[in-house]
Amino acid sequence: MKFEVLILGCGAAAPSGRNLPSAQLINLRENYLLVDCGEGTQLQLRRYNVKFQRISHIFISHLHGDHYLGLMGLLSSMHLLGRRTPLVVYSPPGLEEIIRLQMKISESYLEFSLTFIELPCNEELLIVNEQAFEVRSFPLRHRLKCSGFVFKEKPLLPNISKEMIHEFKLDIEEILQLKHGKSIVNRDGLLVEPKQVLLPIPETKSYAYCSDTVEWENVIPFIRNVSLLYHESTFLETEAKRAVETWHSTASGAARIASKAEVKRLMLGHYSARYSDLNCFLEEASRIFPNVILAEEGRVLEL
Amino acid sequence: MKFEVLILGCGAAAPSGRNLPSAQLINLRENYLLVDCGEGTQLQLRRYNVKFQRISHIFISHLHGDHYLGLMGLLSSMHLLGRRTPLVVYSPPGLEEIIRLQMKISESYLEFSLTFIELPCNEELLIVNEQAFEVRSFPLRHRLKCSGFVFKEKPLLPNISKEMIHEFKLDIEEILQLKHGKSIVNRDGLLVEPKQVLLPIPETKSYAYCSDTVEWENVIPFIRNVSLLYHESTFLETEAKRAVETWHSTASGAARIASKAEVKRLMLGHYSARYSDLNCFLEEASRIFPNVILAEEGRVLEL
Repeated sequence: MKFEVLILGCGAAAPSGRNLPSAQLINLRENYLLVDCGEGTQLQLRRYNVKFQRISHIFISHLHGDHYLGLMGLLSSMHLLGRRTPLVVYSPPGLEEIIRLQMKISESYLEFSLTFIELPCNEELLIVNEQAFEVRSFPLRHRLKCSGFVFKEKPLLPNISKEMIHEFKLDIEEILQLKHGKSIVNRDGLLVEPKQVLLPIPETKSYAYCSDTVEWENVIPFIRNVSLLYHESTFLETEAKRAVETWHSTASGAARIASKAEVKRLMLGHYSARYSDLNCFLEEASRIFPNVILAEEGRVLEL
Repeated sequence: MKFEVLILGCGAAAPSGRNLPSAQLINLRENYLLVDCGEGTQLQLRRYNVKFQRISHIFISHLHGDHYLGLMGLLSSMHLLGRRTPLVVYSPPGLEEIIRLQMKISESYLEFSLTFIELPCNEELLIVNEQAFEVRSFPLRHRLKCSGFVFKEKPLLPNISKEMIHEFKLDIEEILQLKHGKSIVNRDGLLVEPKQVLLPIPETKSYAYCSDTVEWENVIPFIRNVSLLYHESTFLETEAKRAVETWHSTASGAARIASKAEVKRLMLGHYSARYSDLNCFLEEASRIFPNVILAEEGRVLEL
């Protein structure tokens, strides 16, 4: 089942002409989840033909403009284009006040239910718990209160191979019982046990989002073993001092975190506008953690 | 001397995929004036290679999102890229509260002086009075308090033709005195009067901006005889009822205003996303007012 990430923007705060500010769309088993929403996100969603009314949850990591300034316009457009389905926005405290003030001053309203949920950003929290997936928030270390997120599939019921269905002449009711771990007696009076027929459950995949943050080992327990880690790398290691001063990470720092957390794959992003060649990020990180890729606008990552 | 308008965005509120929300950059004798600042304006400024630190004044017609949501990001970028020169923003009341709240919550500040001037939007006002140009605001009629603007060159000193300078052997001091209307006696003892040598003063040009508004004859005295009128035309006349309901104009309505105000040229814009072919706007308006053009992103109008 589908679990993919579409990069809508992966630049840092100062405009670069190359990258747009942070935003990613996650399709998690046909649930559309938006992570961060920098200025221009609604234009990017349109550019990549995303049906943005299908977005059900929006996760804002922190309230620096390059991570949320596209939200007001996106909400307005959702309203203007007839949205009626509820929307939930998770963010550090303050975003609801910003949005409600703008709506008051523009004397506008929304035809759909909009709920803001404030993240304390000081502990791990299970914030979405659906049948098919869950989302946890956890603290990052940045100048401003900032939250990372882990998106995780929940296990599906195990499958039964066609051969076994044929061999034991199983009907739909029997298949369901076996999938739920119950033994059955089939039409030939034969006892069939789950362990005889069930295939292994496919591994569940998970995606962790860490932007913006210093290189901070405290995040490791929250992101350990994820299938894909997005970790900001605003700078290269030559600017390590500047990275610390501005509460950001380097490509090496992101790779060290990925390595220690034993994630499967690392994606870099949030590049400072000062770098003209992004391959330097890839080269630097891959010396520490080989399975690394670069975020770029329009790129789709399948987990 | 230069007087031109660069269209950065000319769509209506609902995103169209074709047009961006409202924004125009006016170069008035090398003064950079931004009119409206919809989401994505800073990206457009970058796209068209505008040195946006040179913007000295920003004029926001009203506080619907498609006219101001790009301001916070633009201000942040100006700060991040080292701006130190002051900036003045004119708008209906409420914008300063929105910007200051966002800066407070993001714990950010600006290194340059930012002044907000509130427009009452119920009378004509001279709001900028520089040596080279002036700007007046005047009321439009929209759902929300809304202001139009007229940008006008001030007369330059008259010139003296090269032939006359040669014939009367004028030096720089004598030329300046004549330009200021004073007679002189030249090196041959000849009395030279201004009327003998001065060329006619070039006509001053003016640009009026009317977005968003119903078709409203009260604006005519404020925009009479301007060189170029931008007047919104969200709809075609087939949607005249909808135009009134939503406090907007049709292409015909814009043309009627242009005709009654005896402007030299009309530019249409603020097109609803429902129309796939914008030439219908041109055709409809030109039946009433022939000298009409369409705003489109990237178009530069010389006055």
